[in-house]
Amino acid sequence: MAQMLTVGFIGGTGPQGRGLGVRLAMAGHRVLIGSRTAERAQEIVTELREQRPDLPIEGDTNASVCETADLLVVVVPYDAQQDTLASLRAAIGSKIVVSCVNALGFDKGGPYPLTVPAGSAAEECQQLLPEARVVGAWQNVSGVKLGRFDESVAVDVPITGDDEDARAAVAPLVEAIDGMRAIDAGPLRLTRPIEELTAVLVSINRRYRIQAGINIAGLARPQAT
Amino acid sequence: MAQMLTVGFIGGTGPQGRGLGVRLAMAGHRVLIGSRTAERAQEIVTELREQRPDLPIEGDTNASVCETADLLVVVVPYDAQQDTLASLRAAIGSKIVVSCVNALGFDKGGPYPLTVPAGSAAEECQQLLPEARVVGAWQNVSGVKLGRFDESVAVDVPITGDDEDARAAVAPLVEAIDGMRAIDAGPLRLTRPIEELTAVLVSINRRYRIQAGINIAGLARPQAT
Repeated sequence: MAQMLTVGFIGGTGPQGRGLGVRLAMAGHRVLIGSRTAERAQEIVTELREQRPDLPIEGDTNASVCETADLLVVVVPYDAQQDTLASLRAAIGSKIVVSCVNALGFDKGGPYPLTVPAGSAAEECQQLLPEARVVGAWQNVSGVKLGRFDESVAVDVPITGDDEDARAAVAPLVEAIDGMRAIDAGPLRLTRPIEELTAVLVSINRRYRIQAGINIAGLARPQAT
Repeated sequence: MAQMLTVGFIGGTGPQGRGLGVRLAMAGHRVLIGSRTAERAQEIVTELREQRPDLPIEGDTNASVCETADLLVVVVPYDAQQDTLASLRAAIGSKIVVSCVNALGFDKGGPYPLTVPAGSAAEECQQLLPEARVVGAWQNVSGVKLGRFDESVAVDVPITGDDEDARAAVAPLVEAIDGMRAIDAGPLRLTRPIEELTAVLVSINRRYRIQAGINIAGLARPQAT
């Protein structure tokens, strides 16, 4: 029996926070949706409960969520990351923080990766939260797909991070979501290509009118346990 | 009936050049393996013909290969790219050039992407060959897998490039190889994540003892035509 956690979403009112939050709650985890104001968070939680009653989801301020949760997931837009995280450092402490953030730009040529001085949004998150154990995951998962709660999301989720125990702790959380497989991809410095790949996937989405994700070819799916 | 091309490999004596070369020759294309000296190229071709007799593969200098081929494939190590391509610019002219080059470093933390001032090895290739129509492809395909000529390589190959006709010309070449599917991924500026993803795949290979590749989830395989 997997351990049930209290998972907090920092900036969790967008498609990725709502989608991952509902799916983790469906798997039995307690989910806290964080926002700048408790009212905004509770508004989203009320909406989600209309679609999926009885799920263990609550809404509160980002600061309260960081205090209460066992593990945090950062789903803020990249340009809000610095301001948001700087004020939460003390509340987060040494907890595991999963970064789902992508630094993407869009112009008439389509989507493209922004240059992040730290290398990647996840490495910037680690710089902003030096005590935390930052792990990159879920950056490539389409918010649109996540929002179709009746459908599984059959994608592979590469997990990066410098703390091996933190990577290992996030893997079962990923695999608690129907269809997802966690892939241990190694240290945090390998996060940039994973984040930037999202620009490639968005470009593919536009060309093929799909919601693309990735699978790692050559890795046999293990038997369900 | 697909058009048969003369495909030249610049620096084609390594695993990627040999593997892609044999497979394109198996599909009926004429393949020229280029090297700094004609002797070295012919030596490799002799070895390949011992494994696969009667394939349309020849060896010659990089310069001769660039003059003769309809389309070039760059498979040099990244640190040899600048010197190699600078001298070939006139011979290549406005031909299509497929860049398979990855700028990877290795240290005790494993593989990692090197910072390329141009953004990616493919964009550097385009800067070195401004008249050529540069396309990125095949960067993530394992040389080990390519070398097992009796096995198909079931991976998706994202194709990037600023010339739409060039991308469209490379797609059937990719799909001439058994198991491979070409994915139109958009402009050349999206090549960096694809190249750098190779570091992630090598990291995964080491952890799982496999030869990983990628598949794009959510894109149905078309019926064979």
